[in-house]
Amino acid sequence: MVFEEADLIIKKCMILPMSNINVIQNGLIAVKDGAISYMGDITDAPKFKAEKVLEGSGKLVMPGLIDCHTHLAMTLFRGLAEDVTLRKWLEESIWPLEAKLRPQDVYDGALLGCLEMIKSGITCFADMYFFESKVAEAVEKAGLRAALASGIIEAGSQERGEKMFREAVQFAQEYRKYADGRITTFLGPHTVYTCNQELLKRIREKASRMSVGIHIHIAESKEMAEKVMKNFGFSEVKLLESLQFLSDDVLAAHCIHLKQEDTKILAKRRVKVVHNPVANMKLAQGVAKVKELIEAGVTVGLGTDGPASNNSLDMFESMKVAALLQKVRYKDPTVLPNRRVLEMATINGAKALGLEKQIGSLEIGKRADIILIDLKRPNLTPLHDLCSSLIYSVHGCDVDSVIVDGRLVMEHREVKTLGESEVMEKAEDAAFKLLER
Amino acid sequence: MVFEEADLIIKKCMILPMSNINVIQNGLIAVKDGAISYMGDITDAPKFKAEKVLEGSGKLVMPGLIDCHTHLAMTLFRGLAEDVTLRKWLEESIWPLEAKLRPQDVYDGALLGCLEMIKSGITCFADMYFFESKVAEAVEKAGLRAALASGIIEAGSQERGEKMFREAVQFAQEYRKYADGRITTFLGPHTVYTCNQELLKRIREKASRMSVGIHIHIAESKEMAEKVMKNFGFSEVKLLESLQFLSDDVLAAHCIHLKQEDTKILAKRRVKVVHNPVANMKLAQGVAKVKELIEAGVTVGLGTDGPASNNSLDMFESMKVAALLQKVRYKDPTVLPNRRVLEMATINGAKALGLEKQIGSLEIGKRADIILIDLKRPNLTPLHDLCSSLIYSVHGCDVDSVIVDGRLVMEHREVKTLGESEVMEKAEDAAFKLLER
Repeated sequence: MVFEEADLIIKKCMILPMSNINVIQNGLIAVKDGAISYMGDITDAPKFKAEKVLEGSGKLVMPGLIDCHTHLAMTLFRGLAEDVTLRKWLEESIWPLEAKLRPQDVYDGALLGCLEMIKSGITCFADMYFFESKVAEAVEKAGLRAALASGIIEAGSQERGEKMFREAVQFAQEYRKYADGRITTFLGPHTVYTCNQELLKRIREKASRMSVGIHIHIAESKEMAEKVMKNFGFSEVKLLESLQFLSDDVLAAHCIHLKQEDTKILAKRRVKVVHNPVANMKLAQGVAKVKELIEAGVTVGLGTDGPASNNSLDMFESMKVAALLQKVRYKDPTVLPNRRVLEMATINGAKALGLEKQIGSLEIGKRADIILIDLKRPNLTPLHDLCSSLIYSVHGCDVDSVIVDGRLVMEHREVKTLGESEVMEKAEDAAFKLLER
Repeated sequence: MVFEEADLIIKKCMILPMSNINVIQNGLIAVKDGAISYMGDITDAPKFKAEKVLEGSGKLVMPGLIDCHTHLAMTLFRGLAEDVTLRKWLEESIWPLEAKLRPQDVYDGALLGCLEMIKSGITCFADMYFFESKVAEAVEKAGLRAALASGIIEAGSQERGEKMFREAVQFAQEYRKYADGRITTFLGPHTVYTCNQELLKRIREKASRMSVGIHIHIAESKEMAEKVMKNFGFSEVKLLESLQFLSDDVLAAHCIHLKQEDTKILAKRRVKVVHNPVANMKLAQGVAKVKELIEAGVTVGLGTDGPASNNSLDMFESMKVAALLQKVRYKDPTVLPNRRVLEMATINGAKALGLEKQIGSLEIGKRADIILIDLKRPNLTPLHDLCSSLIYSVHGCDVDSVIVDGRLVMEHREVKTLGESEVMEKAEDAAFKLLER
């Protein structure tokens, strides 16, 4: 008898590949050297000799979720500025606190965020923040995958703008293949109204030369969208288009206040949009027209946004809220059906980050970013419709095990890469000391 | 040394009483004969001799959540009719299935619902359905508290209307103090357009004579609200007002499509409203003006609605969605602050069910319906703002233990009253057999 070798196999599981392949009811999936080496019906599978075997009976195996927009270290500020306007939230709470942040705070906050993400089945995320090398270190430690950008905010000070630009470029260069290649890098200009046009052009050119993407906020605030229109005579999107800024490597968070021609430009330039329904609702920023963006051919990913404006990091929750909110927006319960929402959180998220050849679906040869969901839960019984249950009935805590790049980072809810209590204590300590500083 | 006797004490816990008393940071709460016999700071507390001691360190103790509107046995249909209109949902999926329901199905489905509720911290719920005595039996078995109504739908057949009315009265009479008094009963006319005016009048009179409340759907569907206006020349609320139907014992689910004068009438008659944000969003029924109802002085509770239109029974999720949705509705992030939402799910829910003297807050002498939440979770770290964390960051699975009427029904996530696997298997079996029938 011939055995195939594997580092890890999961057997007797239901598999939702999120590719063109349908659900496999009784499947086997094998992982070797961090990649998926076999996937199929268990009756057709070869015999495996594996270092680790996970029993998949009663479990669903699907791609890890991809959170396309967050500011992870803001876990430290969770709950500090509640029920206030975006302007007040930024000016009176968040910015003064961020001015006091030290690198170690960002590490502690980001590590807490990584822990929360692992526990709800997020295997990859896109982040934009300060001291981003500390976020990279947290990602390496936690065993996650991430697309990281060091933020660039000029906001009236050319000197600050220059400094942050230099730092962002240096970070993007230094960390682009960090953590065994699990980290990719972006440049992170904050918005069109916190970076001047000259700087935006230089960021665009630099990103192209370096072959890294650009992560930016577009049309989040109605107030600022109107201000940009008044000051420049252009919408945010048209302003960026006039600078030849928009391209298929741009990851645009929010995109709420768009005119029809803005949507057309985004589609034409193949810009990737990230929808953040929970944070947009909490700060009452309006509702993005996800239905129209998708119909126009735009790739739309899904994000939690930072944990200070959500206030949790649970992509299952964000999927449910995204599905519900579009139905409200269009007064039509048929809008944004379940499968579309699942795509936003998996394969389309991967496309948004330029990682669709590596992750986002379960296919032989792709990196093994896999989550197991325990289907034997009251809220998932009976299982009449798998996709519907994954959008509307599942909770983050139904995730049983998490594999990233072939490595088991959580097994039966026990996180293998981090000491849970220690991570929580350190972050809590950092947060309270920051408030006293 | 003198010891006070108790059946159960929880010590060293944080306590959120949801009364006029502030949070107690290091508290002790004692339960005797099903009621709260002591609550206060641990340093002031007498010594207790208790049969059962729960260690409360790192835990929050708060009132159990009250789900004011559901159709519990519809767990059986979870996921069966997705992304469709309310009319299609009812006419093509739900009603044909309900016609095939047998009493045992309702028992199995309701027991599954009870299990799901316990696991996410719901201790009391209001239900309206068929074979309601089977729901009562499930509630007794699970150890929960409930306000139950046998539904009355005439829908063009006077004979059916009469039969359901008789059954509803008989149920309300027979089960009004069932399960050691944990069950109260209501009469459950479905809507003003599925019961004729004569029948509605008789239901009103009967409820008053029996001193039971009335649970009804009002202004859920825009289409039906307009039809009622066209056929009767009145809104649903004004039609009920003209029948002298409205009173402080009426529990009105939804109340989405109200005119200003409708809101005034509801306030004047002290009708209790139940807001069901998730189901309303999923079926795209519109958004209730909760802010205006509260401002008009109406008591507003919160509900999940049936698990076929939600599709889960998690009041923490419903609290978050309620808070988010009102901010979207009024384009104002300051609307419906955290504390208001917590009141909807606790003390105002109790008021809505006429049970505010027994439950809804933690006070000496009230029945002991208590939940313990594990605060040592990544998503609840750091704990800058308790109320905010309870609305936006907590998940149902962070509930550690549940006490109903002084009885520990879940301890450290292990349900004491039900065999979890057995309940899930039986409900799944019932659901699949029903589909084949």
